[in-house]
Amino acid sequence: MDQPENRQFRLIRRPVGQATRRDFEFRTDPPRRPAEGEIMVRVEYLSLDPAMRRWMHEGKSYITPVKLGDVMRALGLGTVIESNATGVASGDVMRGVLGVQSIATVVAKDCTKIDPTIAPKPLFLSALGMPGMTAHFGLLEVGQPKAGETVVVSGAAGAVGALVGQIAKIHGCRAVGIAGGAEKCRYITDELGFDAAIDYKSESVPRKLREHCPSGIDVYFDNVGGQILDDCLAQINVRARIVICGAISQYNSTGPIRGPSNYLSLLFNRARMEGMIVLDYVDRYAEGMRAMAGWMHQGKLKSREDIVEGIETFPETLEKLFTGGNFGKLMLKV
Amino acid sequence: MDQPENRQFRLIRRPVGQATRRDFEFRTDPPRRPAEGEIMVRVEYLSLDPAMRRWMHEGKSYITPVKLGDVMRALGLGTVIESNATGVASGDVMRGVLGVQSIATVVAKDCTKIDPTIAPKPLFLSALGMPGMTAHFGLLEVGQPKAGETVVVSGAAGAVGALVGQIAKIHGCRAVGIAGGAEKCRYITDELGFDAAIDYKSESVPRKLREHCPSGIDVYFDNVGGQILDDCLAQINVRARIVICGAISQYNSTGPIRGPSNYLSLLFNRARMEGMIVLDYVDRYAEGMRAMAGWMHQGKLKSREDIVEGIETFPETLEKLFTGGNFGKLMLKV
Repeated sequence: MDQPENRQFRLIRRPVGQATRRDFEFRTDPPRRPAEGEIMVRVEYLSLDPAMRRWMHEGKSYITPVKLGDVMRALGLGTVIESNATGVASGDVMRGVLGVQSIATVVAKDCTKIDPTIAPKPLFLSALGMPGMTAHFGLLEVGQPKAGETVVVSGAAGAVGALVGQIAKIHGCRAVGIAGGAEKCRYITDELGFDAAIDYKSESVPRKLREHCPSGIDVYFDNVGGQILDDCLAQINVRARIVICGAISQYNSTGPIRGPSNYLSLLFNRARMEGMIVLDYVDRYAEGMRAMAGWMHQGKLKSREDIVEGIETFPETLEKLFTGGNFGKLMLKV
Repeated sequence: MDQPENRQFRLIRRPVGQATRRDFEFRTDPPRRPAEGEIMVRVEYLSLDPAMRRWMHEGKSYITPVKLGDVMRALGLGTVIESNATGVASGDVMRGVLGVQSIATVVAKDCTKIDPTIAPKPLFLSALGMPGMTAHFGLLEVGQPKAGETVVVSGAAGAVGALVGQIAKIHGCRAVGIAGGAEKCRYITDELGFDAAIDYKSESVPRKLREHCPSGIDVYFDNVGGQILDDCLAQINVRARIVICGAISQYNSTGPIRGPSNYLSLLFNRARMEGMIVLDYVDRYAEGMRAMAGWMHQGKLKSREDIVEGIETFPETLEKLFTGGNFGKLMLKV
């Protein structure tokens, strides 16, 4: 077999603040041949996610940090070019933790075979992938929205947030999104059907929340933390549910994380704040994917991908997540 | 009837920081005769609670603030001296929101008749009263402890905290209390049967939590907020429950409330933080009182009251709550 080269980004130091190119080594190695149970995958798409910033950081988390010298961890999707695992053949399309590299040699059973005839491949990294499952189970299982309630989501034009608002609408809720910039706000109301959008870059979030949530906030799905979390806490209803999905405003913080100073609103309102990690729902992904795919077929759910070409752009493309530069699920086409 | 005088504390300004005598007017008025449905009660015991500080503060809470010029709100217990309500007679012992005054004229149906032959009267303001119901329903309904789990409680020698740890023990949990000073720590371990105590005034809370919670924290019942909340968040287990019952370290704050900067531990651990207001359980008080009284009869549950004589000491006695000067349920004997 013609042995291709494996272009890869290895983490060589722990970033302080924003991760930059200097935190990685971009190099080319011969790919490793698959051992028993392994497969070699030509990586086609890599998912860029806010959580990647956390994986670079040493310290207690839900997952071990990437070791210095290792290929940077990333979810991806690609085609098997050599299999040493039963049940997987060359040509199969697999999704899994492939890493930021062009050729990944990984344990087959840690990957999921996908059927690319159901939907375009990038969708398996967005609405039918981790962001979709995060939105689906985070909102429905942790947020427990009831028809008629008001659901607010931040990062509302992002991979997860855009889906959260649409799933809220499908469940008969009022959906209000917080996003940065007029274009993203127009997108979530005009294209995705949110009831209202708040541009945190140019509008007063507290004032606009009062205006767009006249009955208060029943579910707040938080992707950002910081001031916006506090603004929402100030306007929650009795028995509200706050889903803590992420805190992108804090991930590059070099100082201490900013805690929500309005957390006593949980007390006054007997409300609940609960963390959500999508990996807890792995055994229900099939159910989640069926639901999401069904809504997409019915035209009730739209997904948007922001696909950047070229693995070599990885550090700068990742940065877009933290500057609000992406629009839709950010991924690399390798 | 011989008309007694009503000595009373009225709130005349909103305290900044610690409430002091200057925030109240102590005056003597003739008591108001009971209108239809009302009773006149000679107040015997007044409960002093951390929540009183919040009631003095304007702003969104679970209850309206005390209006300037009004008698300061307080729970109390006393004997009816004149009744204009059916079902209540002179001599009955009633518990309710009587206010910081020696004679209260209140709506009878807002009060509860108690049977003083069951237990000494002060107990109806501690283990068989609001603190008891707060500990009982807060721990069991919101905290959901399971046998074998580790329950940590702050303010552990206080009215609520001391009961929380004992109820945790009754339910087969490991109980670790955080309190201020060696005497309080000795009390909760030696007298109340907590497994361990941490003296936050002289010990490193993070280090001692690691030592006394070798399997991590499953339930943290928070009465204090601030640094101790952060210290506990750093050591919670997956699916831990944090009961937010109070935040006494923050109530006198003149700056912004300090939010828990370790709140993302909720995310990493898929944990839950939930507020608890005892008033939500009013219709289950009878059940709670039966359980608490039963455990007391069996010698499994102890209650300690810190009774200060003289209504005229109210402002200074209240201050003890915030300086850690009280030991057990603080109340005034009028």
